[in-house]
Amino acid sequence: MKQQRAHPLGVPTMPGSQAAPTDDGGAARAARVTGADRLLVNRLAKAVGSPPVAFALWDGVDAYAPGDEATVVGRLTFRDRAALISSIASPELGFGDAYSAGRIDIDGDMPRVFFTIYRSMAEAGPGARKRSLFGRLPKPQVNTRAGSRKHIHHHYDLGNEFYRLWLDEKMVYTCAYYPNREASLEEAQIAKMHHVCRKVRLKAGMRVVEAGCGWGSLAMHMAEHYGVQVKAFNISHQQIDYAREQAKARGLADSVEFIEDDYRNVSGKFDAFVSVGMLEHVGKDNYKTLGDVVYRSLKRGGLGIIHSVGRSRTAPPNAWLEQRIFPGSYPPSLRDMMDIFETHEFSILDIENLRLHYAETLMEWLRRFDGHADEITRMYDESFVRAWRLYLGGCAAAFLASTIQLFQVVFAHPDDNRIPMTRGHVYGTDSPDWDL
Amino acid sequence: MKQQRAHPLGVPTMPGSQAAPTDDGGAARAARVTGADRLLVNRLAKAVGSPPVAFALWDGVDAYAPGDEATVVGRLTFRDRAALISSIASPELGFGDAYSAGRIDIDGDMPRVFFTIYRSMAEAGPGARKRSLFGRLPKPQVNTRAGSRKHIHHHYDLGNEFYRLWLDEKMVYTCAYYPNREASLEEAQIAKMHHVCRKVRLKAGMRVVEAGCGWGSLAMHMAEHYGVQVKAFNISHQQIDYAREQAKARGLADSVEFIEDDYRNVSGKFDAFVSVGMLEHVGKDNYKTLGDVVYRSLKRGGLGIIHSVGRSRTAPPNAWLEQRIFPGSYPPSLRDMMDIFETHEFSILDIENLRLHYAETLMEWLRRFDGHADEITRMYDESFVRAWRLYLGGCAAAFLASTIQLFQVVFAHPDDNRIPMTRGHVYGTDSPDWDL
Repeated sequence: MKQQRAHPLGVPTMPGSQAAPTDDGGAARAARVTGADRLLVNRLAKAVGSPPVAFALWDGVDAYAPGDEATVVGRLTFRDRAALISSIASPELGFGDAYSAGRIDIDGDMPRVFFTIYRSMAEAGPGARKRSLFGRLPKPQVNTRAGSRKHIHHHYDLGNEFYRLWLDEKMVYTCAYYPNREASLEEAQIAKMHHVCRKVRLKAGMRVVEAGCGWGSLAMHMAEHYGVQVKAFNISHQQIDYAREQAKARGLADSVEFIEDDYRNVSGKFDAFVSVGMLEHVGKDNYKTLGDVVYRSLKRGGLGIIHSVGRSRTAPPNAWLEQRIFPGSYPPSLRDMMDIFETHEFSILDIENLRLHYAETLMEWLRRFDGHADEITRMYDESFVRAWRLYLGGCAAAFLASTIQLFQVVFAHPDDNRIPMTRGHVYGTDSPDWDL
Repeated sequence: MKQQRAHPLGVPTMPGSQAAPTDDGGAARAARVTGADRLLVNRLAKAVGSPPVAFALWDGVDAYAPGDEATVVGRLTFRDRAALISSIASPELGFGDAYSAGRIDIDGDMPRVFFTIYRSMAEAGPGARKRSLFGRLPKPQVNTRAGSRKHIHHHYDLGNEFYRLWLDEKMVYTCAYYPNREASLEEAQIAKMHHVCRKVRLKAGMRVVEAGCGWGSLAMHMAEHYGVQVKAFNISHQQIDYAREQAKARGLADSVEFIEDDYRNVSGKFDAFVSVGMLEHVGKDNYKTLGDVVYRSLKRGGLGIIHSVGRSRTAPPNAWLEQRIFPGSYPPSLRDMMDIFETHEFSILDIENLRLHYAETLMEWLRRFDGHADEITRMYDESFVRAWRLYLGGCAAAFLASTIQLFQVVFAHPDDNRIPMTRGHVYGTDSPDWDL
């Protein structure tokens, strides 16, 4: 049996579990399937709304089989009793850990299987939405400055080589914007960057601050295509390193400054405030602080944009994602986000929801990730690959099922009437400034 | 002295007050101006941030004169002590009533004067925003079904002849959408109706429900230009009467049904849910109910739009407006509005803020209203005209100062992926349905 290494996600491995289960190996070692096991798995299937997904146990038999075989989209196989029990006790953390450890298998297209289950849960009503049937939710991580640094390091410092395998060539690790169905991921990421720049009406000579800049793709795009000066903040050391190298290589080092620091330390005055994919890591307790940062750094006459995963109503984050993939993360509802904007009475000008674009983006990332699974297994291990497949596929499904949303929020200071009158600046129709 | 009649607004007239003060008449009858009066008016000016607006007393002298005369945009004249005291004690209700009763005068462009004061209050910080310095706010009206009928009657049944004098020819009594600065009110109202129709992607043969249809302009526009079947609800008897006549005259009686009933009684299933300018009258307590109405009446695959005056943060409504002009009205913050959407986890797709469009609309209405002031005085009385001028001009100023906003919110059921991928359907670029 393959020796299990600890890997960066901290997914626990359990005695008797396998990183790479074979079709029959698990069954041979697991306890005999009893009537109680079959009862439990049927209860579980019912609790999630009896979806058209088969649930098999470690004897390889479907203990729960949906009525109409033609509609079945996939199969979950629990490879031992502990995997079943922990999935019931803790459908997010317990299930996710058991899947990562190779003690649950999923047959079928993963986003489609999870989408089907999410839809069936929603149709079954709020009773099906319980997060933890027995236990309590794990305590979310707290984003102090030090906490944020640790949490961001956990995910974004996994290695630029790893991300290069499956992101687009510009290393954009946020929701793309597909102007049409035929667009490639590369095209859609470029379209997203233009979409963001247009929304905040960038013009040559402006000064822009970016909070949470990833590998610097958007900061460099803004400088290159819109002739602006950018200060871009990020606390991931590896990302900042990469971004600085790129800026040099592309001759943009004079127009983009990459700063390895927390958004809370932004100083100076800017014509635009841009933040794409950082809010998820800020944590609800810090929204007022973020609003204060925007208030003091965005000039009158300037526009701000915050692009973030969100929800249609306030709810705890998925426990497995929050513990294993994105510690300290929290996808806010629009209600939650108002904590950023209300204190200083920012005038919210435009909100767009791109949830299906993120589903497309994630499905493409998953395809590319799967295409490099062997290489990634060699870089980390099998359970890392399984966990990441679950993260990418599960999130794609959650966007498809409207469990999570993707909001772009554009706003301005209240004492500012130099705001766009229409969205002509985004969609290419005229929009002269009105002097009101 | 002109005999004061009771008028539909219920603005109290006070002993010794004048409906039509002359430049010196009020001064002659009022008590002598004392040092205490001058002190009080200077305190008031300071409390609102010392704006570049002069404050005169009933002796005709500026007791508060802003430093730089060149920047002064207007003058408030308190024509007796009671007007001053009640404006200090109750800056919304007391001031509004005193102005309506002719006991306060405003020289200068009214929207500009109020805009200046609102900005100066905002700059002075939260201390200046106190609503009532001594007293408590009046209790807002409650929108039971009977309450709503009474409140809507109060405003919208003032007489179609009255509204015809100053609205556009189609009688659209909601925020217009100016595609460019040169557009007339008429053009901007038609553009607004198209904007709404495009946002919910109307197609021939669809069934549409409209909650709160005014004089029926949008309902008829939808039927005429988009070939849809409309059921339009309204509890204003005079508006429904007018709308039915118009539909007959325009040959639209077969495609638009005007129903004199409460939005809470909407029944049936529709391809689109449209509500423009009703939410302001719904009241916060009924948002969940409104969400239930939408949930049961909007088909999967259909889009909803709610267009409403709003705020950048939750706050009590302007007491004078709520008591005298729009009883039971409440402009919600986006946070408040989430009570409509969260229970059923509607996916919010698009929010647009049109606050400056409403400022433009109101300023145009005020110009037309002022052009018919004599006629309207004959229809009602002087204090009615003063109250309405204050309402139109004050609201224009509030939109200019970002004290109030105008939100258009587009949403869909969560279990529905036939939503628009981009805003191409609104802005004329392609947006084929994606089959996700």
